[in-house]
Amino acid sequence: MGPIGIFDSGIGGLTVARAASDLLPNESILYFGDTAHLPYGEKSPELIRKYSTRIALHLLNSGCKAIVVACNSASSNALEQVREAVGENIPVIDMVHPVVESLYVSDAVPSLGCKKVGLIGTRATISSELYKRAIESLNNAANGTVELFSRATPLLASAIEEGFYNDTIPGQVLEAYLEDGYFNEVDSIILGCTHYPLVSEEVKDLLPKSVAVINSPKIVALALKKVLSERGLLLGKSSQLETSNKFQVSDLTENFRLGAERFFGGNISLDEVDLTL
Amino acid sequence: MGPIGIFDSGIGGLTVARAASDLLPNESILYFGDTAHLPYGEKSPELIRKYSTRIALHLLNSGCKAIVVACNSASSNALEQVREAVGENIPVIDMVHPVVESLYVSDAVPSLGCKKVGLIGTRATISSELYKRAIESLNNAANGTVELFSRATPLLASAIEEGFYNDTIPGQVLEAYLEDGYFNEVDSIILGCTHYPLVSEEVKDLLPKSVAVINSPKIVALALKKVLSERGLLLGKSSQLETSNKFQVSDLTENFRLGAERFFGGNISLDEVDLTL
Repeated sequence: MGPIGIFDSGIGGLTVARAASDLLPNESILYFGDTAHLPYGEKSPELIRKYSTRIALHLLNSGCKAIVVACNSASSNALEQVREAVGENIPVIDMVHPVVESLYVSDAVPSLGCKKVGLIGTRATISSELYKRAIESLNNAANGTVELFSRATPLLASAIEEGFYNDTIPGQVLEAYLEDGYFNEVDSIILGCTHYPLVSEEVKDLLPKSVAVINSPKIVALALKKVLSERGLLLGKSSQLETSNKFQVSDLTENFRLGAERFFGGNISLDEVDLTL
Repeated sequence: MGPIGIFDSGIGGLTVARAASDLLPNESILYFGDTAHLPYGEKSPELIRKYSTRIALHLLNSGCKAIVVACNSASSNALEQVREAVGENIPVIDMVHPVVESLYVSDAVPSLGCKKVGLIGTRATISSELYKRAIESLNNAANGTVELFSRATPLLASAIEEGFYNDTIPGQVLEAYLEDGYFNEVDSIILGCTHYPLVSEEVKDLLPKSVAVINSPKIVALALKKVLSERGLLLGKSSQLETSNKFQVSDLTENFRLGAERFFGGNISLDEVDLTL
Protein backbone atom coordinates (compact mmCIF):
# COMPACT_ATOMS: atom_id res chain seq x y z
CA MET A 1 0.00 0.00 0.00
CA GLY A 2 2.61 2.53 -1.09
CA PRO A 3 2.11 6.04 -2.38
CA ILE A 4 0.52 7.11 -5.66
CA GLY A 5 3.24 7.91 -8.16
CA ILE A 6 2.57 10.96 -10.32
CA PHE A 7 4.97 12.24 -12.95
CA ASP A 8 5.30 15.01 -15.48
CA SER A 9 8.06 16.51 -17.58
CA GLY A 10 8.12 19.35 -15.07
CA ILE A 11 5.91 20.99 -12.51
CA GLY A 12 2.66 21.27 -14.48
CA GLY A 13 1.59 17.81 -13.29
CA LEU A 14 1.28 19.30 -9.82
CA THR A 15 -2.16 20.53 -10.90
CA VAL A 16 -3.07 16.84 -11.12
CA ALA A 17 -1.31 16.04 -7.82
CA ARG A 18 -3.39 18.83 -6.26
CA ALA A 19 -6.65 17.36 -7.58
CA ALA A 20 -5.64 13.85 -6.46
CA SER A 21 -4.66 15.10 -3.03
CA ASP A 22 -7.98 16.97 -2.65
CA LEU A 23 -10.04 13.96 -3.72
CA LEU A 24 -7.98 11.32 -1.87
CA PRO A 25 -6.76 13.02 1.31
CA ASN A 26 -5.81 9.69 2.93
CA GLU A 27 -3.39 8.75 0.18
CA SER A 28 0.30 9.65 0.01
CA ILE A 29 1.80 10.98 -3.20
CA LEU A 30 5.25 10.59 -4.70
CA TYR A 31 5.63 13.20 -7.43
CA PHE A 32 8.44 13.24 -9.99
CA GLY A 33 9.04 16.19 -12.31
CA ASP A 34 11.64 15.61 -15.01
CA THR A 35 12.90 19.18 -14.97
CA ALA A 36 16.28 18.11 -16.38
CA HIS A 37 14.55 17.14 -19.62
CA LEU A 38 11.51 19.39 -19.88
CA PRO A 39 9.72 20.34 -21.99
CA TYR A 40 8.58 17.02 -23.48
CA GLY A 41 6.20 18.82 -25.82
CA GLU A 42 8.87 19.44 -28.46
CA LYS A 43 10.65 16.12 -28.20
CA SER A 44 10.40 13.05 -30.43
CA PRO A 45 8.13 10.15 -29.43
CA GLU A 46 11.19 7.90 -28.95
CA LEU A 47 12.83 10.26 -26.48
CA ILE A 48 9.58 10.85 -24.57
CA ARG A 49 9.24 7.05 -24.25
CA LYS A 50 12.78 6.68 -22.96
CA TYR A 51 12.34 9.35 -20.30
CA SER A 52 8.83 8.24 -19.30
CA THR A 53 9.64 4.58 -18.79
CA ARG A 54 12.73 5.47 -16.77
CA ILE A 55 10.61 7.59 -14.43
CA ALA A 56 7.84 4.96 -14.21
CA LEU A 57 10.41 2.36 -13.15
CA HIS A 58 11.77 4.76 -10.55
CA LEU A 59 8.26 5.20 -9.13
CA LEU A 60 7.72 1.44 -9.20
CA ASN A 61 11.02 0.85 -7.40
CA SER A 62 10.00 3.48 -4.84
CA GLY A 63 7.00 1.33 -3.94
CA CYS A 64 4.21 3.18 -5.71
CA LYS A 65 0.96 1.22 -5.97
CA ALA A 66 -0.35 3.17 -8.99
CA ILE A 67 1.10 5.57 -11.51
CA VAL A 68 -0.48 8.69 -12.97
CA VAL A 69 1.12 9.96 -16.18
CA ALA A 70 0.31 13.59 -15.39
CA CYS A 71 1.70 14.88 -18.65
CA ASN A 72 -0.26 14.93 -21.88
CA SER A 73 2.87 14.67 -24.05
CA ALA A 74 3.92 11.51 -22.18
CA SER A 75 0.37 10.12 -22.07
CA SER A 76 0.04 10.64 -25.81
CA ASN A 77 3.37 9.12 -26.78
CA ALA A 78 4.54 6.71 -24.09
CA LEU A 79 1.50 5.18 -22.38
CA GLU A 80 1.92 1.72 -23.87
CA GLN A 81 5.63 1.67 -23.02
CA VAL A 82 4.98 2.81 -19.44
CA ARG A 83 2.33 0.10 -18.95
CA GLU A 84 4.67 -2.51 -20.35
CA ALA A 85 7.53 -1.34 -18.13
CA VAL A 86 5.62 -1.47 -14.84
CA GLY A 87 3.56 -4.58 -15.54
CA GLU A 88 -0.14 -5.35 -15.19
CA ASN A 89 -0.26 -5.24 -11.40
CA ILE A 90 0.33 -1.52 -11.27
CA PRO A 91 -2.57 0.54 -12.63
CA VAL A 92 -1.43 3.35 -14.93
CA ILE A 93 -3.74 6.33 -15.35
CA ASP A 94 -3.14 8.76 -18.20
CA MET A 95 -4.43 12.23 -19.02
CA VAL A 96 -6.19 11.38 -22.27
CA HIS A 97 -8.55 8.42 -21.85
CA PRO A 98 -10.39 9.54 -18.68
CA VAL A 99 -11.08 12.93 -20.26
CA VAL A 100 -12.29 11.44 -23.53
CA GLU A 101 -14.46 8.92 -21.65
CA SER A 102 -16.04 11.78 -19.68
CA LEU A 103 -17.50 13.01 -22.99
CA TYR A 104 -19.54 9.80 -23.20
CA VAL A 105 -20.17 8.79 -19.60
CA SER A 106 -20.97 11.27 -16.90
CA ASP A 107 -18.77 10.74 -13.87
CA ALA A 108 -19.63 13.64 -11.57
CA VAL A 109 -18.14 15.98 -14.16
CA PRO A 110 -20.21 17.88 -16.69
CA SER A 111 -18.39 16.84 -19.88
CA LEU A 112 -21.21 14.57 -21.06
CA GLY A 113 -23.10 16.17 -23.91
CA CYS A 114 -20.14 18.06 -25.33
CA LYS A 115 -20.16 17.42 -29.04
CA LYS A 116 -17.78 19.82 -30.73
CA VAL A 117 -14.75 19.64 -28.55
CA GLY A 118 -11.70 21.86 -28.91
CA LEU A 119 -8.30 20.63 -27.78
CA ILE A 120 -5.14 22.63 -27.18
CA GLY A 121 -1.84 21.02 -26.27
CA THR A 122 1.85 20.68 -27.04
CA ARG A 123 3.13 19.71 -30.45
CA ALA A 124 3.95 16.18 -29.21
CA THR A 125 0.42 15.73 -27.82
CA ILE A 126 -1.41 16.98 -30.89
CA SER A 127 0.87 15.15 -33.38
CA SER A 128 0.35 11.82 -31.63
CA GLU A 129 -3.40 12.06 -32.40
CA LEU A 130 -4.17 9.96 -29.32
CA TYR A 131 -7.15 12.15 -28.37
CA LYS A 132 -8.42 11.79 -31.94
CA ARG A 133 -8.05 8.01 -31.94
CA ALA A 134 -9.65 7.66 -28.49
CA ILE A 135 -12.65 9.72 -29.62
CA GLU A 136 -13.02 7.80 -32.89
CA SER A 137 -12.91 4.56 -30.95
CA LEU A 138 -15.62 5.65 -28.49
CA ASN A 139 -17.70 7.19 -31.28
CA ASN A 140 -17.70 3.73 -32.87
CA ALA A 141 -18.35 1.84 -29.65
CA ALA A 142 -21.06 4.12 -28.32
CA ASN A 143 -22.56 5.48 -31.52
CA GLY A 144 -21.20 8.84 -30.45
CA THR A 145 -20.96 11.98 -32.52
CA VAL A 146 -18.18 13.82 -30.75
CA GLU A 147 -16.12 15.92 -33.15
CA LEU A 148 -12.59 17.04 -32.21
CA PHE A 149 -10.93 20.31 -33.20
CA SER A 150 -7.31 20.13 -32.10
CA ARG A 151 -4.52 22.65 -32.31
CA ALA A 152 -0.96 22.74 -31.00
CA THR A 153 -0.23 25.82 -28.90
CA PRO A 154 3.38 25.04 -27.98
CA LEU A 155 4.51 28.36 -26.52
CA LEU A 156 1.69 28.44 -23.98
CA ALA A 157 3.21 25.96 -21.51
CA SER A 158 6.54 27.79 -21.54
CA ALA A 159 4.78 31.09 -20.94
CA ILE A 160 2.97 29.65 -17.92
CA GLU A 161 6.10 27.96 -16.61
CA GLU A 162 7.81 31.37 -16.84
CA GLY A 163 5.17 32.86 -14.57
CA PHE A 164 3.14 34.60 -17.26
CA TYR A 165 -0.30 33.99 -15.87
CA ASN A 166 -2.62 36.58 -14.45
CA ASP A 167 -0.96 38.46 -17.28
CA THR A 168 -1.76 39.52 -20.84
CA ILE A 169 0.87 37.28 -22.51
CA PRO A 170 -1.01 33.92 -22.45
CA GLY A 171 -4.06 35.53 -24.04
CA GLN A 172 -1.95 37.10 -26.76
CA VAL A 173 -0.14 33.83 -27.41
CA LEU A 174 -3.42 31.92 -27.59
CA GLU A 175 -4.95 34.54 -29.82
CA ALA A 176 -2.03 34.19 -32.23
CA TYR A 177 -2.68 30.44 -32.42
CA LEU A 178 -6.46 30.71 -32.76
CA GLU A 179 -6.92 33.88 -34.80
CA ASP A 180 -8.25 31.95 -37.79
CA GLY A 181 -11.42 31.19 -35.82
CA TYR A 182 -10.78 27.45 -35.78
CA PHE A 183 -12.52 27.14 -32.40
CA ASN A 184 -15.50 29.37 -33.23
CA GLU A 185 -17.99 26.50 -33.21
CA VAL A 186 -16.79 24.41 -30.28
CA ASP A 187 -19.03 23.89 -27.24
CA SER A 188 -16.22 22.86 -24.91
CA ILE A 189 -12.46 22.81 -24.68
CA ILE A 190 -9.95 20.33 -23.30
CA LEU A 191 -6.86 21.94 -21.79
CA GLY A 192 -4.57 19.21 -23.08
CA CYS A 193 -1.50 20.13 -21.03
CA THR A 194 -1.17 20.03 -17.28
CA HIS A 195 0.14 23.61 -17.24
CA TYR A 196 -2.97 25.08 -18.82
CA PRO A 197 -5.33 25.07 -15.82
CA LEU A 198 -3.40 28.10 -14.58
CA VAL A 199 -4.67 30.11 -17.55
CA SER A 200 -8.20 28.70 -17.82
CA GLU A 201 -9.63 32.20 -17.31
CA GLU A 202 -7.57 33.55 -20.22
CA VAL A 203 -8.76 30.64 -22.37
CA LYS A 204 -12.38 31.37 -21.43
CA ASP A 205 -11.97 35.04 -22.27
CA LEU A 206 -10.93 34.15 -25.82
CA LEU A 207 -13.93 31.92 -26.49
CA PRO A 208 -17.71 32.50 -26.40
CA LYS A 209 -19.14 32.40 -22.87
CA SER A 210 -21.05 29.23 -23.63
CA VAL A 211 -17.85 27.21 -24.12
CA ALA A 212 -17.20 24.88 -21.18
CA VAL A 213 -13.65 24.28 -19.98
CA ILE A 214 -13.26 20.59 -19.20
CA ASN A 215 -11.47 20.08 -15.88
CA SER A 216 -8.87 17.43 -16.76
CA PRO A 217 -7.05 17.25 -13.38
CA LYS A 218 -10.32 16.57 -11.56
CA ILE A 219 -11.45 13.99 -14.14
CA VAL A 220 -8.11 12.19 -13.92
CA ALA A 221 -8.26 12.24 -10.10
CA LEU A 222 -11.73 10.65 -10.30
CA ALA A 223 -10.43 7.98 -12.69
CA LEU A 224 -7.57 7.31 -10.29
CA LYS A 225 -9.99 6.90 -7.38
CA LYS A 226 -12.13 4.55 -9.42
CA VAL A 227 -9.31 2.25 -10.42
CA LEU A 228 -7.84 2.21 -6.91
CA SER A 229 -11.26 1.32 -5.56
CA GLU A 230 -11.83 -1.44 -8.17
CA ARG A 231 -8.48 -3.01 -7.33
CA GLY A 232 -8.92 -2.75 -3.57
CA LEU A 233 -6.03 -0.31 -3.30
CA LEU A 234 -7.94 2.64 -1.90
CA LEU A 235 -7.06 3.66 1.65
CA GLY A 236 -9.94 4.25 4.02
CA LYS A 237 -10.15 7.09 6.49
CA SER A 238 -8.62 5.14 9.33
CA SER A 239 -6.08 3.14 7.39
CA GLN A 240 -3.29 5.67 7.49
CA LEU A 241 -2.62 7.99 10.37
CA GLU A 242 -0.54 10.45 8.44
CA THR A 243 -0.08 11.02 4.73
CA SER A 244 3.38 11.76 3.46
CA ASN A 245 3.75 13.53 0.15
CA LYS A 246 7.13 13.66 -1.55
CA PHE A 247 8.10 15.82 -4.47
CA GLN A 248 11.15 15.03 -6.57
CA VAL A 249 12.66 16.76 -9.60
CA SER A 250 15.59 15.74 -11.79
CA ASP A 251 17.09 19.25 -11.79
CA LEU A 252 16.41 21.63 -8.92
CA THR A 253 16.53 25.38 -9.43
CA GLU A 254 15.08 28.24 -7.42
CA ASN A 255 12.64 28.93 -10.24
CA PHE A 256 11.22 25.40 -10.07
CA ARG A 257 10.97 25.68 -6.30
CA LEU A 258 8.82 28.80 -6.59
CA GLY A 259 6.85 27.43 -9.54
CA ALA A 260 6.07 24.19 -7.74
CA GLU A 261 4.34 26.04 -4.94
CA ARG A 262 2.26 28.03 -7.43
CA PHE A 263 1.19 24.89 -9.30
CA PHE A 264 0.44 22.82 -6.23
CA GLY A 265 -1.07 25.74 -4.37
CA GLY A 266 0.80 25.34 -1.11
CA ASN A 267 4.18 24.88 0.51
CA ILE A 268 6.09 21.88 -0.74
CA SER A 269 9.67 20.79 -0.41
CA LEU A 270 11.45 19.57 -3.55
CA ASP A 271 14.25 17.02 -3.60
CA GLU A 272 16.63 16.50 -6.50
CA VAL A 273 16.90 12.92 -7.77
CA ASP A 274 19.13 12.04 -10.73
CA LEU A 275 17.72 9.03 -12.58
CA THR A 276 20.59 8.84 -15.06
CA LEU A 277 23.02 7.55 -12.42
CA MET B 1 43.05 20.60 -39.75
CA GLY B 2 39.56 19.38 -38.95
CA PRO B 3 36.32 21.32 -38.90
CA ILE B 4 35.31 24.04 -36.48
CA GLY B 5 33.04 22.58 -33.82
CA ILE B 6 30.12 24.79 -32.85
CA PHE B 7 27.52 23.81 -30.29
CA ASP B 8 24.39 25.15 -28.67
CA SER B 9 21.55 23.75 -26.58
CA GLY B 10 19.47 23.83 -29.75
CA ILE B 11 19.35 25.58 -33.08
CA GLY B 12 19.95 29.19 -31.95
CA GLY B 13 23.71 28.71 -32.29
CA LEU B 14 23.18 28.43 -36.03
CA THR B 15 23.16 32.25 -36.09
CA VAL B 16 26.81 31.97 -34.99
CA ALA B 17 27.50 29.15 -37.46
CA ARG B 18 26.11 31.42 -40.18
CA ALA B 19 28.41 34.32 -39.17
CA ALA B 20 31.40 31.96 -38.98
CA SER B 21 30.59 30.45 -42.34
CA ASP B 22 30.25 33.92 -43.92
CA LEU B 23 33.53 35.15 -42.46
CA LEU B 24 35.50 31.92 -43.00
CA PRO B 25 34.14 30.39 -46.21
CA ASN B 26 37.10 28.02 -46.54
CA GLU B 27 36.49 26.35 -43.21
CA SER B 28 34.23 23.36 -42.56
CA ILE B 29 31.82 23.39 -39.66
CA LEU B 30 30.55 20.59 -37.44
CA TYR B 31 27.50 21.89 -35.59
CA PHE B 32 25.89 20.12 -32.64
CA GLY B 33 22.53 21.19 -31.21
CA ASP B 34 21.51 19.45 -27.98
CA THR B 35 17.82 19.45 -28.82
CA ALA B 36 17.21 16.47 -26.50
CA HIS B 37 18.10 18.69 -23.55
CA LEU B 38 17.17 22.20 -24.59
CA PRO B 39 16.59 24.77 -23.25
CA TYR B 40 19.71 25.18 -21.13
CA GLY B 41 18.54 28.59 -19.93
CA GLU B 42 16.43 27.15 -17.12
CA LYS B 43 18.78 24.41 -16.01
CA SER B 44 21.19 24.33 -13.09
CA PRO B 45 24.89 25.19 -13.64
CA GLU B 46 25.83 21.56 -12.78
CA LEU B 47 23.58 20.11 -15.46
CA ILE B 48 24.67 22.66 -18.08
CA ARG B 49 28.30 21.67 -17.32
CA LYS B 50 27.53 17.97 -17.71
CA TYR B 51 25.82 18.42 -21.07
CA SER B 52 28.37 20.94 -22.39
CA THR B 53 31.48 18.90 -21.61
CA ARG B 54 29.90 15.81 -23.16
CA ILE B 55 29.27 17.70 -26.38
CA ALA B 56 32.73 19.30 -26.36
CA LEU B 57 34.32 15.84 -26.08
CA HIS B 58 32.14 14.61 -28.94
CA LEU B 59 33.37 17.50 -31.11
CA LEU B 60 36.96 16.81 -30.04
CA ASN B 61 36.61 13.12 -30.88
CA SER B 62 35.13 14.11 -34.24
CA GLY B 63 38.40 15.86 -35.07
CA CYS B 64 37.44 19.50 -34.52
CA LYS B 65 40.39 21.89 -34.36
CA ALA B 66 38.54 24.57 -32.40
CA ILE B 67 35.30 24.78 -30.46
CA VAL B 68 32.78 27.61 -30.33
CA VAL B 69 30.39 27.51 -27.38
CA ALA B 70 27.58 29.16 -29.37
CA CYS B 71 25.22 29.27 -26.39
CA ASN B 72 25.28 32.02 -23.79
CA SER B 73 23.90 29.75 -21.05
CA ALA B 74 26.73 27.26 -21.65
CA SER B 75 29.35 29.99 -22.07
CA SER B 76 28.25 31.56 -18.79
CA ASN B 77 28.17 28.36 -16.77
CA ALA B 78 30.42 25.75 -18.35
CA LEU B 79 33.31 27.50 -20.12
CA GLU B 80 35.96 26.47 -17.62
CA GLN B 81 34.78 22.85 -17.63
CA VAL B 82 34.70 22.73 -21.44
CA ARG B 83 38.26 24.13 -21.65
CA GLU B 84 39.46 21.61 -19.10
CA ALA B 85 37.75 18.74 -20.93
CA VAL B 86 39.24 19.44 -24.36
CA GLY B 87 42.71 20.54 -23.19
CA GLU B 88 44.88 23.54 -24.06
CA ASN B 89 45.60 22.57 -27.65
CA ILE B 90 42.03 23.17 -28.74
CA PRO B 91 40.99 26.83 -28.68
CA VAL B 92 37.57 27.35 -27.13
CA ILE B 93 35.68 30.51 -28.09
CA ASP B 94 32.69 31.58 -26.02
CA MET B 95 29.88 34.07 -26.53
CA VAL B 96 30.67 36.36 -23.58
CA HIS B 97 34.33 37.44 -23.60
CA PRO B 98 34.67 38.49 -27.26
CA VAL B 99 31.55 40.65 -26.92
CA VAL B 100 32.69 42.25 -23.66
CA GLU B 101 36.17 42.85 -25.13
CA SER B 102 34.59 44.60 -28.13
CA LEU B 103 33.38 47.29 -25.70
CA TYR B 104 37.00 48.18 -24.96
CA VAL B 105 38.89 47.35 -28.16
CA SER B 106 37.50 48.04 -31.59
CA ASP B 107 37.74 45.01 -33.82
CA ALA B 108 35.95 46.04 -36.99
CA VAL B 109 32.72 46.18 -34.97
CA PRO B 110 31.29 49.41 -33.58
CA SER B 111 30.90 48.38 -29.91
CA LEU B 112 33.78 50.57 -28.71
CA GLY B 113 32.47 53.62 -26.91
CA CYS B 114 29.35 51.95 -25.53
CA LYS B 115 29.22 52.88 -21.87
CA LYS B 116 25.79 51.98 -20.52
CA VAL B 117 25.22 48.54 -21.90
CA GLY B 118 21.98 46.60 -21.61
CA LEU B 119 22.02 42.80 -21.59
CA ILE B 120 19.13 40.40 -22.09
CA GLY B 121 19.51 36.65 -21.79
CA THR B 122 18.25 33.45 -20.23
CA ARG B 123 17.96 33.01 -16.49
CA ALA B 124 21.08 30.78 -16.44
CA THR B 125 23.10 33.39 -18.33
CA ILE B 126 22.06 36.36 -16.20
CA SER B 127 22.33 34.47 -12.88
CA SER B 128 25.89 33.36 -13.64
CA GLU B 129 26.96 37.05 -13.75
CA LEU B 130 29.76 36.17 -16.18
CA TYR B 131 29.11 39.27 -18.31
CA LYS B 132 29.23 41.39 -15.13
CA ARG B 133 32.49 39.85 -13.95
CA ALA B 134 34.10 40.15 -17.38
CA ILE B 135 33.17 43.84 -17.54
CA GLU B 136 34.39 44.54 -14.01
CA SER B 137 37.66 42.84 -14.83
CA LEU B 138 38.20 44.90 -17.99
CA ASN B 139 37.06 48.10 -16.27
CA ASN B 140 39.84 47.48 -13.76
CA ALA B 141 42.46 46.49 -16.33
CA ALA B 142 41.72 49.27 -18.81
CA ASN B 143 40.41 52.03 -16.53
CA GLY B 144 37.07 51.51 -18.25
CA THR B 145 33.71 52.91 -17.21
CA VAL B 146 31.35 50.45 -18.83
CA GLU B 147 28.18 49.97 -16.79
CA LEU B 148 26.00 46.86 -17.27
CA PHE B 149 22.21 46.69 -16.97
CA SER B 150 21.23 43.04 -17.20
CA ARG B 151 17.85 41.37 -17.17
CA ALA B 152 16.67 37.80 -17.70
CA THR B 153 14.02 37.48 -20.44
CA PRO B 154 13.52 33.70 -20.31
CA LEU B 155 10.39 33.32 -22.44
CA LEU B 156 11.92 35.15 -25.39
CA ALA B 157 14.09 32.25 -26.66
CA SER B 158 11.14 29.82 -26.51
CA ALA B 159 8.97 32.30 -28.41
CA ILE B 160 11.57 32.59 -31.16
CA GLU B 161 12.15 28.83 -31.25
CA GLU B 162 8.37 28.45 -31.70
CA GLY B 163 8.50 30.63 -34.79
CA PHE B 164 7.18 33.80 -33.20
CA TYR B 165 9.32 36.30 -35.02
CA ASN B 166 8.15 38.81 -37.61
CA ASP B 167 5.25 38.75 -35.17
CA THR B 168 3.91 40.84 -32.30
CA ILE B 169 4.57 38.26 -29.55
CA PRO B 170 8.32 38.85 -28.99
CA GLY B 171 7.74 42.59 -28.60
CA GLN B 172 4.93 41.98 -26.10
CA VAL B 173 7.06 39.51 -24.15
CA LEU B 174 10.02 41.90 -24.08
CA GLU B 175 7.78 44.79 -23.09
CA ALA B 176 6.50 42.77 -20.14
CA TYR B 177 10.08 42.19 -18.99
CA LEU B 178 11.22 45.80 -19.50
CA GLU B 179 8.13 47.83 -18.64
CA ASP B 180 9.79 49.31 -15.55
CA GLY B 181 12.08 51.35 -17.81
CA TYR B 182 15.21 49.57 -16.63
CA PHE B 183 16.85 50.04 -20.04
CA ASN B 184 15.82 53.68 -20.53
CA GLU B 185 19.35 55.02 -20.22
CA VAL B 186 21.37 52.40 -22.09
CA ASP B 187 23.30 53.35 -25.22
CA SER B 188 23.62 49.81 -26.53
CA ILE B 189 22.27 46.33 -25.97
CA ILE B 190 23.83 42.89 -26.02
CA LEU B 191 21.50 40.15 -27.29
CA GLY B 192 22.83 37.59 -24.82
CA CYS B 193 21.23 34.52 -26.36
CA THR B 194 21.96 33.07 -29.78
CA HIS B 195 18.23 33.03 -30.59
CA TYR B 196 17.78 36.75 -30.18
CA PRO B 197 19.31 38.00 -33.46
CA LEU B 198 16.08 36.84 -35.12
CA VAL B 199 14.15 39.51 -33.19
CA SER B 200 16.71 42.32 -33.25
CA GLU B 201 14.20 44.56 -35.04
CA GLU B 202 11.61 43.99 -32.30
CA VAL B 203 14.25 44.80 -29.66
CA LYS B 204 15.18 48.01 -31.51
CA ASP B 205 11.53 49.04 -31.72
CA LEU B 206 11.22 48.87 -27.93
CA LEU B 207 14.24 51.07 -27.25
CA PRO B 208 15.17 54.63 -28.28
CA LYS B 209 16.54 54.86 -31.85
CA SER B 210 19.99 55.81 -30.59
CA VAL B 211 20.47 52.42 -28.87
CA ALA B 212 22.92 50.23 -30.80
CA VAL B 213 22.34 46.49 -31.04
CA ILE B 214 25.68 44.73 -30.59
CA ASN B 215 26.13 41.97 -33.19
CA SER B 216 27.34 39.04 -31.07
CA PRO B 217 27.50 36.35 -33.79
CA LYS B 218 29.72 38.55 -35.97
CA ILE B 219 31.95 39.52 -33.03
CA VAL B 220 32.35 35.88 -32.04
CA ALA B 221 33.14 34.89 -35.63
CA LEU B 222 35.85 37.58 -35.69
CA ALA B 223 37.27 36.28 -32.41
CA LEU B 224 37.28 32.77 -33.87
CA LYS B 225 39.15 33.96 -36.96
CA LYS B 226 41.71 35.77 -34.79
CA VAL B 227 42.48 32.78 -32.59
CA LEU B 228 42.68 30.40 -35.58
CA SER B 229 45.07 32.79 -37.27
CA GLU B 230 47.23 33.22 -34.14
CA ARG B 231 47.55 29.47 -33.78
CA GLY B 232 48.24 28.83 -37.46
CA LEU B 233 44.98 26.92 -37.83
CA LEU B 234 43.32 29.16 -40.40
CA LEU B 235 42.78 27.62 -43.82
CA GLY B 236 43.86 29.72 -46.82
CA LYS B 237 41.85 30.08 -50.01
CA SER B 238 43.59 27.23 -51.74
CA SER B 239 44.03 24.88 -48.83
CA GLN B 240 40.70 23.16 -49.12
CA LEU B 241 38.91 22.46 -52.35
CA GLU B 242 35.53 21.90 -50.84
CA THR B 243 34.10 22.75 -47.44
CA SER B 244 31.86 20.24 -45.79
CA ASN B 245 29.44 21.45 -43.14
CA LYS B 246 27.71 18.94 -40.91
CA PHE B 247 24.78 19.60 -38.62
CA GLN B 248 23.91 17.22 -35.81
CA VAL B 249 21.17 17.30 -33.17
CA SER B 250 20.53 14.99 -30.25
CA ASP B 251 16.79 14.76 -30.97
CA LEU B 252 15.47 15.27 -34.48
CA THR B 253 11.94 16.51 -35.09
CA GLU B 254 10.34 18.12 -38.10
CA ASN B 255 10.07 21.38 -36.17
CA PHE B 256 13.82 21.48 -35.57
CA ARG B 257 14.42 20.67 -39.22
CA LEU B 258 12.38 23.70 -40.29
CA GLY B 259 13.77 25.90 -37.53
CA ALA B 260 17.35 25.05 -38.41
CA GLU B 261 16.90 26.35 -41.94
CA ARG B 262 15.43 29.60 -40.62
CA PHE B 263 18.28 30.12 -38.16
CA PHE B 264 21.06 29.22 -40.58
CA GLY B 265 19.39 30.96 -43.47
CA GLY B 266 19.68 28.21 -46.00
CA ASN B 267 19.13 24.53 -46.71
CA ILE B 268 20.85 22.21 -44.29
CA SER B 269 20.53 18.55 -43.54
CA LEU B 270 20.30 17.50 -39.89
CA ASP B 271 21.54 14.18 -38.52
CA GLU B 272 20.51 12.73 -35.18
CA VAL B 273 23.38 11.72 -32.89
CA ASP B 274 22.75 10.31 -29.41
CA LEU B 275 25.63 11.20 -27.08
CA THR B 276 24.19 9.28 -24.13
CA LEU B 277 24.98 5.92 -25.69
